[in-house]
Amino acid sequence: MIKITIIGSGNVAQHLVKIISKTPNLELIQMVVRPLSLPTDFILKSKICTDFDAIKPADLYIIAVSDKAIEEVALKLPFKNKLVVHTSGSIGIDKIDNKNKRGVFYPLQTFTKNKNVDFKSIPICIEAETAEDYLLIEKVAFALSDKVYKINSVQRKALHVSAVFVCNFVNHLYQIGNTICDENQIPFEILFPLIQETAKKIEMLAPIEAQTGPAKREDIETINSHLRFLSDENQQDIYKILTKSIIDNGKKL
Amino acid sequence: MIKITIIGSGNVAQHLVKIISKTPNLELIQMVVRPLSLPTDFILKSKICTDFDAIKPADLYIIAVSDKAIEEVALKLPFKNKLVVHTSGSIGIDKIDNKNKRGVFYPLQTFTKNKNVDFKSIPICIEAETAEDYLLIEKVAFALSDKVYKINSVQRKALHVSAVFVCNFVNHLYQIGNTICDENQIPFEILFPLIQETAKKIEMLAPIEAQTGPAKREDIETINSHLRFLSDENQQDIYKILTKSIIDNGKKL
Repeated sequence: MIKITIIGSGNVAQHLVKIISKTPNLELIQMVVRPLSLPTDFILKSKICTDFDAIKPADLYIIAVSDKAIEEVALKLPFKNKLVVHTSGSIGIDKIDNKNKRGVFYPLQTFTKNKNVDFKSIPICIEAETAEDYLLIEKVAFALSDKVYKINSVQRKALHVSAVFVCNFVNHLYQIGNTICDENQIPFEILFPLIQETAKKIEMLAPIEAQTGPAKREDIETINSHLRFLSDENQQDIYKILTKSIIDNGKKL
Repeated sequence: MIKITIIGSGNVAQHLVKIISKTPNLELIQMVVRPLSLPTDFILKSKICTDFDAIKPADLYIIAVSDKAIEEVALKLPFKNKLVVHTSGSIGIDKIDNKNKRGVFYPLQTFTKNKNVDFKSIPICIEAETAEDYLLIEKVAFALSDKVYKINSVQRKALHVSAVFVCNFVNHLYQIGNTICDENQIPFEILFPLIQETAKKIEMLAPIEAQTGPAKREDIETINSHLRFLSDENQQDIYKILTKSIIDNGKKL
């Protein structure tokens, strides 16, 4: 049994607590939270700890708090020489105080409250400072997921930036599509099959090969008619910059 | 039996010929192509027609050619008072010469050569000038797909612009993610589960509700660190404009 304590109460912390509680060979020791953010619906009350001085011994401490708070939380931990990891895509391993052994356990997924995800398919990117620590983190990662990657802090930052493009920015483009549909009394669901196919296609075909549309064809007439159609200046600017980028890109090939 | 002739040899034409050939109650009469673009691998040679004067009678003629060529092809058709539709998202119904009865049959999907799609799940957006013509087009659409929508030319244009955002532009963001991964020796496949989850999430949650990430949190520190990380000016510009748009958007709520 690997004994694990989660520190934090946000989306990632909650998903980790739930999945660790039901995974063989892993034992959830505590969930350490601030007194004001007490979760009650998905964890045994006896496992909730609101006092840093009441933290019990564990093999692995996972800090799953906001990026800004990681350094402070790591500093406050009342023990040393224990293995402590954080779950952030953008924070270096060195932000964890070096009184403890340090690592990273970054599940690369977008977590939504109250929406279950299949943890087995979530890539977990891990990092450690010694081979021994790496092995333990890897054991935990493989207990939860089929996809475990050794990723150093520089790569993790690149991955996080990429994730902003393919997840956060993509979702914003979905939102613009939704707005245009609403404004024209079109059910947004008409676009769902196209959205799914676009996302699936790149698992078989590199995105550069999968590119279609007026920008790819340099179909200036359609591009201009779309720009005239858009009344929102912000949408026009986004349309222009992405169209230009696709055209420039085609020229590099 | 509804008799259908396809005019064109591109992706949409090929997918339509394939699916119509195997759909009960629909009969493919001919595929009309230019002599130089003879397809041979997926259609009986006897059904290929390269001469406009050899076009046989049919109930419905589907012009599936590039947007630019629709008007010219419609004009060249050597018959009148027949039902003729095009398959374009951005061309008005009026670009079909009015010697024939006119309509639109727009399958909203991204078609890739040699990649089969499940036609049943493709939304087909249809338009006609009379109730009788509409009924016939609707029959054909429902024979091929479970999702048929009555969409007028203005709505169709809005839909096409939306599709550029949620498909073409989204794919370009995938490509940027891919490039950043390649540059940092990270397998792009790590991002697949995130990409799929982002696409699936909006079927249950409006995109505006599903938005996550540093821009949504107005996490200026992470945003600036990402901008410093990006060395490509074009990627920086896209990062900035989409981040600003997400932040502005949050303020409108």
